[in-house]
Amino acid sequence: MIYLDNSATSYPKPESVLNNISKIMSNYGANSGRGSYEMGIETSEKIYETRKKTASFFNIKKSENVIFTYNCTASLNIAIKGVAKQGCHFIISNYEHNAVVRPLEEMKQRGYCDYSIANIEDDTYFTLKNFERCIRKNTVAIICTGASNVFGIIPPFKSIAALAHKYNLLFILDYSQLAGIMPLDLSDKKIDIVCCSAHKGLLGLPGVGLLIINNDIALNTIIEGGTGSNSENLLQPTEYPDRLESGTPNILGIISLSDSIDFIKNRDVYSHEICLLKYLQRNLNSNKNIKFYTNLLSGKMQAPVLSLNVNNLHSEQTALLLSNDGICVRAGLHCAPLAHKSRNTLKTGTVRISPSIFTEKNDIDYLINSLIKIAK
Amino acid sequence: MIYLDNSATSYPKPESVLNNISKIMSNYGANSGRGSYEMGIETSEKIYETRKKTASFFNIKKSENVIFTYNCTASLNIAIKGVAKQGCHFIISNYEHNAVVRPLEEMKQRGYCDYSIANIEDDTYFTLKNFERCIRKNTVAIICTGASNVFGIIPPFKSIAALAHKYNLLFILDYSQLAGIMPLDLSDKKIDIVCCSAHKGLLGLPGVGLLIINNDIALNTIIEGGTGSNSENLLQPTEYPDRLESGTPNILGIISLSDSIDFIKNRDVYSHEICLLKYLQRNLNSNKNIKFYTNLLSGKMQAPVLSLNVNNLHSEQTALLLSNDGICVRAGLHCAPLAHKSRNTLKTGTVRISPSIFTEKNDIDYLINSLIKIAK
Repeated sequence: MIYLDNSATSYPKPESVLNNISKIMSNYGANSGRGSYEMGIETSEKIYETRKKTASFFNIKKSENVIFTYNCTASLNIAIKGVAKQGCHFIISNYEHNAVVRPLEEMKQRGYCDYSIANIEDDTYFTLKNFERCIRKNTVAIICTGASNVFGIIPPFKSIAALAHKYNLLFILDYSQLAGIMPLDLSDKKIDIVCCSAHKGLLGLPGVGLLIINNDIALNTIIEGGTGSNSENLLQPTEYPDRLESGTPNILGIISLSDSIDFIKNRDVYSHEICLLKYLQRNLNSNKNIKFYTNLLSGKMQAPVLSLNVNNLHSEQTALLLSNDGICVRAGLHCAPLAHKSRNTLKTGTVRISPSIFTEKNDIDYLINSLIKIAK
Repeated sequence: MIYLDNSATSYPKPESVLNNISKIMSNYGANSGRGSYEMGIETSEKIYETRKKTASFFNIKKSENVIFTYNCTASLNIAIKGVAKQGCHFIISNYEHNAVVRPLEEMKQRGYCDYSIANIEDDTYFTLKNFERCIRKNTVAIICTGASNVFGIIPPFKSIAALAHKYNLLFILDYSQLAGIMPLDLSDKKIDIVCCSAHKGLLGLPGVGLLIINNDIALNTIIEGGTGSNSENLLQPTEYPDRLESGTPNILGIISLSDSIDFIKNRDVYSHEICLLKYLQRNLNSNKNIKFYTNLLSGKMQAPVLSLNVNNLHSEQTALLLSNDGICVRAGLHCAPLAHKSRNTLKTGTVRISPSIFTEKNDIDYLINSLIKIAK
């Protein structure tokens, strides 16, 4: 089996991560933040250690502002609804995932707030103009993906963040496609909130989302409950992380993330993955029956995600044929209809190829042969 | 180490559960509902299998109405906010956890809705009268715990549910303290929504909550995002489970729950645990320095959770002394200030003892000796 669907979830996980799971279950089996006995304290400490390690991975000082959630979707909902107020307005890019669009659309439908979509252009200048044009008096935040989960296109998110701050708007970054793949240094405070998950590029277990609050922002809550702190108070605590972490967390997933970060922190994941995809495109670029939606060979920075279609086949058909050859890729809309609308691929979807640090050149050779066969 | 904090989270997990974790990680490492290749389909099928098994465990037919969330707190928030509407009113018992009270208090503070607290009495008749008295024209639901997480008291929740239905109100049950310990048959449809977690009595991993929608109720959403279904639609799907399950789920935790249910489904967990606690109380009842807050020997049905205090010690002090003897119990307010207010234990909290199916009589003997020593 050749697994090339790492943008959906990474597989396999590092051996060091897998080998440690049962140790975590036996050494840190208590609940965190709630017991005064040794194993309870050790579990809490281990979670704190992961929080610190994550903060340091993204180069932020306040580790308490690293919030563990269920998944990136939860993180984005908590961030977006946490800054929303009656009558406000958001701006998003045309490459956002449904985890951004659907919460906004839901709030729009019930008349709570509104949003505009700014197109990402080839040229940063025009992109910024598009965002600037959307700004209204009641705009509170710009939300932008770090990279399109379909096409790998990287919007100029640092420039967009600067634009947001120029107009006193918050900037929320959906970094789910790049966390663990392309380093992100948050120390300059130019990005206010970052959302991502543990199970993709960070090579962690599913069931853990990250919400990093990089500046002093008091988010409203969408979920309240027991925090093991200020229990006599019927209101949610104001301090992070407790304010946004109610109930028992995914203790195993969180502690295990520590091992994942240890594994990836000194590796050049990006170069490994992008070189493999460039190799793929170089070998197939002249094949007229294969249509690529971005050109990795243009020199433009792109996330290691490549979308293509073969002949006039629906992407699902191609994926099925690849699956018959033991190759796992994802087809369809990838939960990002806006992106497909932009590229006119709503009807067929695209076949998405996303390698990992464990993908080898041989795997790509095998994929190339399989694609050539299908394209014939 | 003697672990008696199973009401916070169960420890250890069954060996069959632990042994299967790495198999799950290697066989079902893909994302669910999103890939057309074999491992993706198999992962989806395995999650569906767990959904069916969970439905059958609670004796409900529509397995799609078993929703997997992050934890019981998330389930309760989704349920409560899912039925709430502007200007509505809820009724809760005085034994509710902060996972119920805080979401309601938050909505109350922002003028969205209101709630009343009905006291649980020794006598069901008076309890029902208390609830009935709280009903208003705008009441939408009664929320009640299956058992107090502090005192183990079991409210007459089936009678309260019947009262709710008599007045056309929804009945939401917080079954977090009893799921896996005391069977719950939902087939008579008298309970509308049940919330619990996988990691307590069900002996599963942390990071999985259950939300069971037993009757035809269209819940509003608090989290929206990618569902892998109807991706071109910017609105959340209306069908369960997709409507309430956005983003990548805790695949490992969910699939592993299948093993946990296999382990407990034919065991009389309740009798095992309650007998141990009765044995404890029988041996210490005459000790005047130990105060029990409920009497398990009265013959009244109670959850296997026992709260006590020793001398005039703060519960945290007692827990620390027990911890020195290698005994793990929880002290404090257990995130349930209302319950402590009812019993006048807000100041000291209580020492809570909660065994599991793996607790042995020897463990309780050891605890008895340690408590006698502290009480001297």
